[in-house]
Amino acid sequence: MMKISVSIVNVTSYTGIELLRLLSQHPHFSVEAVTARSAAGQRLYEVFPQCYAGLKQRDHSSTGFDAALVIAEEPEQTDLAFVCLPHAAAATSVVQLLERGTKVVDLSADFRLRDAAVYEEWYKHTHPAPALLETAVYGLCERYRERIEAATLIANPGCYATAATLALLPVVAAGMIVPDVIIDAKSGLSGAGRSPTQGTHYAEANEDVSAYSLSGHRHLPEISQELTAAALAGGNAFSWPLRITFIPHLIPMTRGILATCYADLRQDDQRHVSTTADVKALYEAYYADEPFVHVIDQPPHTKWSYGSNNCFIHPTVDSRTGRLVVISCLDNLVKGAAGQAIQNANRLFGLTETYGLSPMSLYP
Amino acid sequence: MMKISVSIVNVTSYTGIELLRLLSQHPHFSVEAVTARSAAGQRLYEVFPQCYAGLKQRDHSSTGFDAALVIAEEPEQTDLAFVCLPHAAAATSVVQLLERGTKVVDLSADFRLRDAAVYEEWYKHTHPAPALLETAVYGLCERYRERIEAATLIANPGCYATAATLALLPVVAAGMIVPDVIIDAKSGLSGAGRSPTQGTHYAEANEDVSAYSLSGHRHLPEISQELTAAALAGGNAFSWPLRITFIPHLIPMTRGILATCYADLRQDDQRHVSTTADVKALYEAYYADEPFVHVIDQPPHTKWSYGSNNCFIHPTVDSRTGRLVVISCLDNLVKGAAGQAIQNANRLFGLTETYGLSPMSLYP
Amino acid sequence: MMKISVSIVNVTSYTGIELLRLLSQHPHFSVEAVTARSAAGQRLYEVFPQCYAGLKQRDHSSTGFDAALVIAEEPEQTDLAFVCLPHAAAATSVVQLLERGTKVVDLSADFRLRDAAVYEEWYKHTHPAPALLETAVYGLCERYRERIEAATLIANPGCYATAATLALLPVVAAGMIVPDVIIDAKSGLSGAGRSPTQGTHYAEANEDVSAYSLSGHRHLPEISQELTAAALAGGNAFSWPLRITFIPHLIPMTRGILATCYADLRQDDQRHVSTTADVKALYEAYYADEPFVHVIDQPPHTKWSYGSNNCFIHPTVDSRTGRLVVISCLDNLVKGAAGQAIQNANRLFGLTETYGLSPMSLYP
Amino acid sequence: MMKISVSIVNVTSYTGIELLRLLSQHPHFSVEAVTARSAAGQRLYEVFPQCYAGLKQRDHSSTGFDAALVIAEEPEQTDLAFVCLPHAAAATSVVQLLERGTKVVDLSADFRLRDAAVYEEWYKHTHPAPALLETAVYGLCERYRERIEAATLIANPGCYATAATLALLPVVAAGMIVPDVIIDAKSGLSGAGRSPTQGTHYAEANEDVSAYSLSGHRHLPEISQELTAAALAGGNAFSWPLRITFIPHLIPMTRGILATCYADLRQDDQRHVSTTADVKALYEAYYADEPFVHVIDQPPHTKWSYGSNNCFIHPTVDSRTGRLVVISCLDNLVKGAAGQAIQNANRLFGLTETYGLSPMSLYP
Repeated sequence: MMKISVSIVNVTSYTGIELLRLLSQHPHFSVEAVTARSAAGQRLYEVFPQCYAGLKQRDHSSTGFDAALVIAEEPEQTDLAFVCLPHAAAATSVVQLLERGTKVVDLSADFRLRDAAVYEEWYKHTHPAPALLETAVYGLCERYRERIEAATLIANPGCYATAATLALLPVVAAGMIVPDVIIDAKSGLSGAGRSPTQGTHYAEANEDVSAYSLSGHRHLPEISQELTAAALAGGNAFSWPLRITFIPHLIPMTRGILATCYADLRQDDQRHVSTTADVKALYEAYYADEPFVHVIDQPPHTKWSYGSNNCFIHPTVDSRTGRLVVISCLDNLVKGAAGQAIQNANRLFGLTETYGLSPMSLYP
Repeated sequence: MMKISVSIVNVTSYTGIELLRLLSQHPHFSVEAVTARSAAGQRLYEVFPQCYAGLKQRDHSSTGFDAALVIAEEPEQTDLAFVCLPHAAAATSVVQLLERGTKVVDLSADFRLRDAAVYEEWYKHTHPAPALLETAVYGLCERYRERIEAATLIANPGCYATAATLALLPVVAAGMIVPDVIIDAKSGLSGAGRSPTQGTHYAEANEDVSAYSLSGHRHLPEISQELTAAALAGGNAFSWPLRITFIPHLIPMTRGILATCYADLRQDDQRHVSTTADVKALYEAYYADEPFVHVIDQPPHTKWSYGSNNCFIHPTVDSRTGRLVVISCLDNLVKGAAGQAIQNANRLFGLTETYGLSPMSLYP
Repeated sequence: MMKISVSIVNVTSYTGIELLRLLSQHPHFSVEAVTARSAAGQRLYEVFPQCYAGLKQRDHSSTGFDAALVIAEEPEQTDLAFVCLPHAAAATSVVQLLERGTKVVDLSADFRLRDAAVYEEWYKHTHPAPALLETAVYGLCERYRERIEAATLIANPGCYATAATLALLPVVAAGMIVPDVIIDAKSGLSGAGRSPTQGTHYAEANEDVSAYSLSGHRHLPEISQELTAAALAGGNAFSWPLRITFIPHLIPMTRGILATCYADLRQDDQRHVSTTADVKALYEAYYADEPFVHVIDQPPHTKWSYGSNNCFIHPTVDSRTGRLVVISCLDNLVKGAAGQAIQNANRLFGLTETYGLSPMSLYP
Repeated sequence: MMKISVSIVNVTSYTGIELLRLLSQHPHFSVEAVTARSAAGQRLYEVFPQCYAGLKQRDHSSTGFDAALVIAEEPEQTDLAFVCLPHAAAATSVVQLLERGTKVVDLSADFRLRDAAVYEEWYKHTHPAPALLETAVYGLCERYRERIEAATLIANPGCYATAATLALLPVVAAGMIVPDVIIDAKSGLSGAGRSPTQGTHYAEANEDVSAYSLSGHRHLPEISQELTAAALAGGNAFSWPLRITFIPHLIPMTRGILATCYADLRQDDQRHVSTTADVKALYEAYYADEPFVHVIDQPPHTKWSYGSNNCFIHPTVDSRTGRLVVISCLDNLVKGAAGQAIQNANRLFGLTETYGLSPMSLYP
């Protein structure tokens, strides 16, 4: 059995530990190195006592990971690295890893936006490695599967961007909607990361819902880039720039994103779709061969994707207004981060795309 | 001190018990009778042990309520009745109460829709008392304060309808938006009532978000009616019928509604508003004298209205698209039900509108 | 109507804001000054937007508080001060306040333990004002009502200590139990305060239960002191020191403490009680005149005390083992902090003990 | 690769669906048949839309399960059956399955108690199949591994019983404690099953903690039977019957049990242990070879076992009282039900005990 050595850079993030969980079941990837500056020198099970169980259960000939691994400051040489650093720090690490010949799946935002100027507008600093923007492939297998297979650097998509883009790709690619979209997204709190803040303090966030980032969330340019690209690729360039309002909300739960997307269907086109059955057929055809995207007949529940790499999509036409309403959901730490990263890594190494990614969510 | 006798019909509903809580602090309303078919013959504190405390603390000369009150099957004669029955059953009770000369605040949907045909379309049965539709006043003080003062029957608005209507009234009345509105609403689970169901089972609803009633929620015709009426009243009749998409979502929390409303601002009008400052000024002027509606500079949190009768509204213009985004929130059991009912009842009896309604929410 | 001026020292704590909520309904206490070093110079509603509502609703002739109050660094002269500072800082503030003639309810631990040596053992620093230990009265009205009325400085009990002491006082005072007690307590997360930490980060605390402070929680010496004092006062000195194991647990909810207390009933005493009916009669007699302590026939729910000053107690004898099991619950921020502080303050000023403290909890 | 056909009886229970999740990753067990009277005729993914994903991802040569399986009324012939029926109904099904030669893991209580009289006392009906009580083996691998390997019928332990028994086995078997034990257990709401009730209604259970079953929970005789047997087996028969007080509590979370156990250490024994280090050494030795039981140095969090088959145990001696306090935790649906059932089934078929049971929990 082929064994591919893997390192996780900044393993103490939520995406880092989620990668450990998923990779513990992977038939080929073997975690050989982990880093985290703040926890350097400690063993994995000392930082994450839940890993302790792995000490007893690990068959040392197997893949997965060793709970006694010592966390390092800097990554060692491995075949593949998952980079879970914050933006800017990530790019610096990516450059070093690529130079050593390590393939990289970067879970930060650093290589998602193709245009360095857009990056700088949204992230408020100069791009640390603009030369790599050409090399990087946006890691949405549902769009770029072939390019991913040939890549060395994958820019793993943002969680909101994955939910919203998958919800809208089929109609955008087909040119079926007016280029004016509203995305109302609801996310659990793990999306805010592992560092405590006032807003993520339990007593504040529990029994509370609020919108945030009204002046512009950083996943918006990513959504905009990908939907525009899809429209162009489909030969359906919009007659005027795509207009998107994206409002994220924090929901008192740990995991899960639900995106409710609204758009008007074009009336000026002979091919136009206008009923729920029409749009459902369009979505089913578009995602027919996708192992992780599921077009369903009822509004999805985030719980259905809890802990799994699945994305459920329910496209429908509001009978009173004729408006398209598409609801998608996924687990922000799996299909929205670590799971999608593994899906991409499987492709990077020519493996079956579903390896390490169980179809079943945790329910209830 | 004037003492007004009050009965609560179907006190064992969540709105019934919330009325008890709020009325326990009211200076004039005294709960003299409570009904609930399923609990008839029991005392209040036997059904709601949390009321037990009232047994010791009640000063019997005071208003409020007696925790030892025996729950009856049918209402006794009082000056005022709050009807917390489901629709259809409510109308039957309302007819009897009005005949006895009791003023009524009906918390059901039975008298909210002015047109019996619309009621029948949405509630799937003949209206039980169409003759009263003329008499009933829609209990939104922010719109109908004078009519409420002169009324005998108040149709207390739905929780979603209150949140959405208050969010959009100022721009609709001023004719400032294109008549095409999206309301994406998020509600806690107490809005689903007190009867257990699969969907409200803790293990199902916890750590889950989903949309529901995609084919049409019953608060939609209410929102439509009120926004259309406001447009007409403002001399700003829409050139084509108001188009509303309303999608409610269930959120894993007990109380609270957040409504995120989207509309395009009109560009064809010399008076047109186009910046956040403009719309904020418009909203502040509209609600300047409203004790319970608060226009604020930041996205509101449902927690800020937890247990209070306050509605917080944040109107803003999305700088990238020029689209109006208005976010409102309230406690579905207070401003969305029992608190608004008391606000209406205060007006019905010529009392100060804020009596019994503390300005402070429960935080954290 | 008598108006008593009040200041809240460190209003930005959870107990500080809860005092504001409760005092907004108080007929005599008027909040004239608030302090908080970190927020000095801001107005109340700027720090707590939920207070904003008070700006419109306040009748300026009334008591309660003004949401536009500017937060100061240091307290002004008022008749009464509630001190919500952390221990040590609290004592310093208390000394200054008392010197000015202000009566003080101190919500910190600084004056709860009568013996400075015990304080130093548990709080790891020299007591900042040992001379005041004689003066301070432990603010448990159910035990020290008369002393409280004559006091100038009240040491408001800890939240766990209140729940556990009220649960055990009747049997300890009556000398009915073997002096060996286990207190297994469960608390919501607001008890951990308003400063964010890893352990109170939403994604960590949600869907999790754990015990903590196994090596000794600081409320233990307080419980020990009060139960020993009650035994001595009842002429039922224990033949050997009272043995207490107290294990607190964090529960994924915002408010509430439930204390499950275990002890063996003495078999060597002619007066001995041995059945649930016996102990219930004992408890009912003990708390017959207490407005906030309620002896009930079924296991209490923390929700029954949510937002109220009530403590529910269910004493029972385990039929298989003959062991006494007493379950008590309360809201840690009300009867466990701000509500009890107001109860004490009412007594300090000769007012009705229940003023400002509604009998009804927030349900559901 | 050996393929063992499996059926799940009453798959629509929470334990049934959890078995599906875990078995989807099992290398040898293949789910060939599922039953559920209420859902007969439907396909798995119609009842559990989250299974839908399996339709696309299933490699039909593999084990796991087919999401398109039609739910039957009665079980078909398979090598192994997991019975997830309520007690009494379970026994009837078990009899039929055994007669056909199917090995059975029964997740109900029907075969846990060896004495039919004790069963009848607690379950209030005559035992439906007393003849099988001799045959059935209590499915706690940590105690009965050899017997389980030779069995045809496994009585899978109760969730509370597993947590409490594992917490106390080492000291009971070694005769180190006074035979007087208090078990204060805290459980998430999935333990109450999938049928909605008033007590499990979200708005009631959220933000609430309460004790229940004070008059005796049905897992008590199970704990009592197993601890007594362990004492006898260790040659440490108690001089008087084991005295256990067991108080379960409902906690507002979906999954997880934490058991806090209290007992006095014996002082009359030369071998007696008296420090945390002593008891930790005893526990570590006892569980040294157990793949799923982990003795740790800090109080465990239920979250550490979320979704995994691990049980974390923290034994400690309260330094002030010398009392033993042992805290254990597990996921009630995994080690407390479906995971332990698979652990048992692995043994039944001579497979590696950890197959299908990932060491990693879902975090956060």
